[in-house]
Amino acid sequence: MAIQTLPQTPQEAWKKIRTGDWRGVTSGVAPGYVQANLAILPMALAFDFLLFCQRNPRPCPILEVIEAGEVEPRLTAPGADIRTDIPYYRVYENGELTGEVDSLKEIWRDDLVSFLLGCSFSFESALSEAGISLRHQEMNCNVPMYVTNIATNSAGVFSGPMVVSMRPVRHDKIVRAVQVTSRFPATHGAPVHIGDPSVIGIENIDRPDFGDGVEIRPGEEPVFWACGVTPQAVALNCKPPLMITHAPGHMFVTAQRDADYAVL
Amino acid sequence: MAIQTLPQTPQEAWKKIRTGDWRGVTSGVAPGYVQANLAILPMALAFDFLLFCQRNPRPCPILEVIEAGEVEPRLTAPGADIRTDIPYYRVYENGELTGEVDSLKEIWRDDLVSFLLGCSFSFESALSEAGISLRHQEMNCNVPMYVTNIATNSAGVFSGPMVVSMRPVRHDKIVRAVQVTSRFPATHGAPVHIGDPSVIGIENIDRPDFGDGVEIRPGEEPVFWACGVTPQAVALNCKPPLMITHAPGHMFVTAQRDADYAVL
Repeated sequence: MAIQTLPQTPQEAWKKIRTGDWRGVTSGVAPGYVQANLAILPMALAFDFLLFCQRNPRPCPILEVIEAGEVEPRLTAPGADIRTDIPYYRVYENGELTGEVDSLKEIWRDDLVSFLLGCSFSFESALSEAGISLRHQEMNCNVPMYVTNIATNSAGVFSGPMVVSMRPVRHDKIVRAVQVTSRFPATHGAPVHIGDPSVIGIENIDRPDFGDGVEIRPGEEPVFWACGVTPQAVALNCKPPLMITHAPGHMFVTAQRDADYAVL
Repeated sequence: MAIQTLPQTPQEAWKKIRTGDWRGVTSGVAPGYVQANLAILPMALAFDFLLFCQRNPRPCPILEVIEAGEVEPRLTAPGADIRTDIPYYRVYENGELTGEVDSLKEIWRDDLVSFLLGCSFSFESALSEAGISLRHQEMNCNVPMYVTNIATNSAGVFSGPMVVSMRPVRHDKIVRAVQVTSRFPATHGAPVHIGDPSVIGIENIDRPDFGDGVEIRPGEEPVFWACGVTPQAVALNCKPPLMITHAPGHMFVTAQRDADYAVL
């Protein structure tokens, strides 16, 4: 098989994914463009879930909601089709994973509402550009994620603890890390905690609940950001009859640039 | 009648309003606390309206949504009752004003969802503290408001143009006015336009669509912010069977301080 070149624009990514020419993870695809987490739920749960996201903007920053009966993300990705333009989807029934598919066309229903949520790729780019290195990228592993004792604000049937991701930051870079990520509230924003993990209920920093453990070196503090796994965990927790998400690492590429979401 | 003293705390305001001891406008009540616009709609319209607000955060910044069947704003005003703690309410049926009441207890229904939206009082305090005077306050009149040619992002049954408010700002203060209000995205945030009114479809700056015209002096530019009248106008535009709002100037006083909503 020939070595594939990474799609460089959102439009190229959608087309290659739709036609089966790209099935890999989306890290590095269409650099500079915002990638999104996907959560699809039936209309009957959509108000509660939208309200849950509104009440918890740090873990659940909404980029776009595609209304029932529609499949095009008109605001963030005009021309794309949410049913076909993600490499792999996961299907959950009653809270259990029941399948992984590369298209939703056969199982699509007109009562499904699609939520696109900000992911950490955008603020990781901003951190890198500010000279703050990312340990999990250096180690070529997944970012460590932890279930905390920080309660989310419940809404309707949805409730549960906040999940955070952790990146070690050198003391002389911590203030800058706060400033840089504060500019991007649409992609998790400022840290939720800096320093002692036990304060937010993390007993063993070397044993994340999701992802991989990374080294924290002398002169560094662990810095914690709200994580997009939160809404997915909270939603599955209430065992919805049907829920569809992107497969881990296989995100939806929007046509919005990272800079479009900076507040300052 | 004895001269009434202004309630100084949110709790005092709710109690005095609830017992009929305060029926005045809420300007100056509980200084330093955020005041909110109110819009109440039946559950059948709540998802569309919440999505409209999510898609248009500048004119429609959500402070809290009180779910159907509940009357306490648990997040922003614990202990208050949304049916009784505003001096006057307006009731609209099929888009027409049909009454003004001082309590909703008799007409309350369990399918009503209450939306509390940020208002401009908060950022006007911030402007004043930054040494930027407010012409409409100096003139003791209402801020001028205009229907623009700026389209909102529609959602479900809700669509319509953005309404803006205007404050004249001296050239040497314009940058500071942008900075100061950028800190408060939950209360309309940064301006949507600075300078030439015709660019956003305003033909005669002296003739606002709502409120009162104010003088723009030499050395000043008109500066325009998204206005909380937008969601109300858009909602009434689709003639909902029932909609309830606060009466103009009679806002809901929350227990949140202005500073709680600063992003930086």
